[in-house]
Amino acid sequence: MARVAGCVLCETDGGVVVGRTPLLRVIRAEEDPRYPAFYRVVWTDHAREFTDLTPADRTHCMDVVAAVEEVLRHHLQPHKVNLATLGNAVPHLHWHVIARWTWDAHFPGPVWASEQRTPSAPRLAEVAAAQSRVEADIAQSLRRWAGTPLGA
Amino acid sequence: MARVAGCVLCETDGGVVVGRTPLLRVIRAEEDPRYPAFYRVVWTDHAREFTDLTPADRTHCMDVVAAVEEVLRHHLQPHKVNLATLGNAVPHLHWHVIARWTWDAHFPGPVWASEQRTPSAPRLAEVAAAQSRVEADIAQSLRRWAGTPLGA
Repeated sequence: MARVAGCVLCETDGGVVVGRTPLLRVIRAEEDPRYPAFYRVVWTDHAREFTDLTPADRTHCMDVVAAVEEVLRHHLQPHKVNLATLGNAVPHLHWHVIARWTWDAHFPGPVWASEQRTPSAPRLAEVAAAQSRVEADIAQSLRRWAGTPLGA
Repeated sequence: MARVAGCVLCETDGGVVVGRTPLLRVIRAEEDPRYPAFYRVVWTDHAREFTDLTPADRTHCMDVVAAVEEVLRHHLQPHKVNLATLGNAVPHLHWHVIARWTWDAHFPGPVWASEQRTPSAPRLAEVAAAQSRVEADIAQSLRRWAGTPLGA
């Protein structure tokens, strides 16, 4: 099924679009200024669960998740990268790719757990300053799939 | 690197072992009785990040994550499946595969967020009663990779 009325990820991009392949987009999440390196890989068609994709589509999806993780590691050297697809509130397949540091608001907890601290402002500014380089590299990385005849 | 001293997932199974492939194991998490369908796919070697695996190993890892998700969906019809690799506290690659229901303790939040309610005891008992069938099917599903010469 391609699009579902009322689904926020069918009807809107859901964030700042950083790049696309024929089957998905990468967006920067904008909801939380404490996480300037929080990206999402959003499947274009409305799929609910990861296993609603074909094996080939799943591999493409995770290749892109890995490509985003690699760019984050290269530019930002995060303490850890967190990957997750939950979709309890928005059941349209999207993968969170989040760079994490020991100084961030929730570390070592997940970003959905209780806040541990106010994150370091200078560190946050450093990450934010790298955003344009990070996103240029993600866009460049996604070009390898441009025009590829993907799909089931 | 194969094993790291002091790493709980290098030194212990980390839960009830449900099945293995030549490169990983599937365990049932036992920490939280409110989640009787909470499994983990644990990479045997000590890898920190998903992108520390080769592309072939990543595909194998996600094939197993998908296989576990499929068994959970088949037997339990969860409202949603949650997949995540965080590793902030235990930086040894492991994927959480969690069956979620609207009646569970945290829905629609992640299991790491604030508790929403006491889960329905009869529903929990139903899920727990299916555990042996679920785990027999996961073990069976993993047999397709037994003896496969996998690896980088």
